[in-house]
Amino acid sequence: MGGARSDLAAVQKAAGDSTVIALEEHSDRSSVTALLGASPAEDLTRYPAMRWVHSTAAGVDGWLRPGVLPEHVILTSAAGNGAIPLAEHALMLMLMLSRDAPRWARAQERHDWERRTHGELAGARLGILGYGNSGEDLARKALACHMEVTALRRRGSAAHDGEVRIVHGDDGLRELLRTSDMLVVTAPLTVETAGMIGAEQIALLPPGACIVVISRGGIVDESALVDALRSGHLGGAGIDAHAVEPLPPDSPLWEAPNAIVTPHNAATTAGTAARGRAIMLENVDRRVRGEQLHNVVDRAAGY
Amino acid sequence: MGGARSDLAAVQKAAGDSTVIALEEHSDRSSVTALLGASPAEDLTRYPAMRWVHSTAAGVDGWLRPGVLPEHVILTSAAGNGAIPLAEHALMLMLMLSRDAPRWARAQERHDWERRTHGELAGARLGILGYGNSGEDLARKALACHMEVTALRRRGSAAHDGEVRIVHGDDGLRELLRTSDMLVVTAPLTVETAGMIGAEQIALLPPGACIVVISRGGIVDESALVDALRSGHLGGAGIDAHAVEPLPPDSPLWEAPNAIVTPHNAATTAGTAARGRAIMLENVDRRVRGEQLHNVVDRAAGY
Repeated sequence: MGGARSDLAAVQKAAGDSTVIALEEHSDRSSVTALLGASPAEDLTRYPAMRWVHSTAAGVDGWLRPGVLPEHVILTSAAGNGAIPLAEHALMLMLMLSRDAPRWARAQERHDWERRTHGELAGARLGILGYGNSGEDLARKALACHMEVTALRRRGSAAHDGEVRIVHGDDGLRELLRTSDMLVVTAPLTVETAGMIGAEQIALLPPGACIVVISRGGIVDESALVDALRSGHLGGAGIDAHAVEPLPPDSPLWEAPNAIVTPHNAATTAGTAARGRAIMLENVDRRVRGEQLHNVVDRAAGY
Repeated sequence: MGGARSDLAAVQKAAGDSTVIALEEHSDRSSVTALLGASPAEDLTRYPAMRWVHSTAAGVDGWLRPGVLPEHVILTSAAGNGAIPLAEHALMLMLMLSRDAPRWARAQERHDWERRTHGELAGARLGILGYGNSGEDLARKALACHMEVTALRRRGSAAHDGEVRIVHGDDGLRELLRTSDMLVVTAPLTVETAGMIGAEQIALLPPGACIVVISRGGIVDESALVDALRSGHLGGAGIDAHAVEPLPPDSPLWEAPNAIVTPHNAATTAGTAARGRAIMLENVDRRVRGEQLHNVVDRAAGY
């Protein structure tokens, strides 16, 4: 069993009689049956005995790239570990965009008392693209902010989840876009979501709408996003996850009008680390006991 | 009846047979029986027939300065008109402070991908000083952010309001301060609240706590606040309302460590204006019909 160095002792305790090693110290690939890690450092087809991989990141797009993980290997993830801080970040970006908070920051630098009329979230329509752990937590927060909430969910057919309106499929996506003053992307990056929001989709959003991305880059076409910010069709954007990371210094997104850029940092909290560690250790314990693992990834769905 | 110029026609409609004039056009002070306005332009003892003043601002501290308003004049206010955007602003400032969002903004200016660990609101303890319209709305939002919420309320004796713990009096204030990671001041400025939070009270807050002020300046001692930011006892502050407004360019608050300054602008939204106008017109209508007015100010309490 391979393991992340920082948690070796705790993993060893949960793993009982299994041998836990840091992967960089392994001498014999043939004996490794399980791996815990954030993203694949190498092609795992080179580990003939591998049966289980636990992704210490919630997003598993890296593990699911073609040729990395043999089909028979079970993949689990830390999904849900960062849901709360992701939703907090999305809410902060929505509030900052609706009030143009960066303008106050610039005025503060000049010691300038610059009063103006700004927006409210109350009464605005929030569209959540991908209604998983972070999307559900964001919906709860947005309802407390008196927003109308619609979410696009891949699975199921329910039309409502409490006060949240649920839509599905291509028609649902178009409906979501047409009725969202704020669109928050919380979906995983999968074959289905890659490039899902391009120029055509952005054009369906109401004039002045804002886009917030907290899950993964590559879902929203950044070039189309920058164009829509420059044209004024979009009122703003708050982007934490980017197609290429770190975001290159010459990316036009850094200086696009009303763009708030953060460095894929929304969920980097002690709480996320603690929740992720608890999920991992619980799964090691379950594996040792032969119980069903938590957060088993549906490899066809991509999350 | 005097009236704010922008709403003269609507007020005239609500006022029926009464004559509505813009105050700057009045020629005969003796005939004015009611006044609608944001703050007193002159000593109202000079209007012998005055019976009712409606403050188009929620805060009435200006109207209640000694000598301005004769005792027999009924004072009503727009209280509640800005509660929702005030709570939104407080929530934004809390989120920005817990994540040090200004640091990301500075990094964005340099096109700098600066990742770091930051805080979460979830699990943190919110103390609300003054549990009126905006305090209640903020509590709802904070609960959706998984915070523990305690509020200091002047009136009543209840120990809970749903999931919100309620405290009272001087002991309650000390308890609130000792247990607040975030202290949000939503109280009106009254004889009782003026200077309520000085160096001694700030020292009771846990190290690293943040203070947010969205109601009125003069409740938190700004000099003590700046000292505590500089010493590092306070982790940050988000201040929208200031003792002197506009905040003077040479105020040390502009550049105090981890201070976010906004220009008494939290509730400056179309929604606030619309809600305030509705409250005013409803009161004019009630006055004409001889019904009980809304939002009658308790002049002893100061709000």
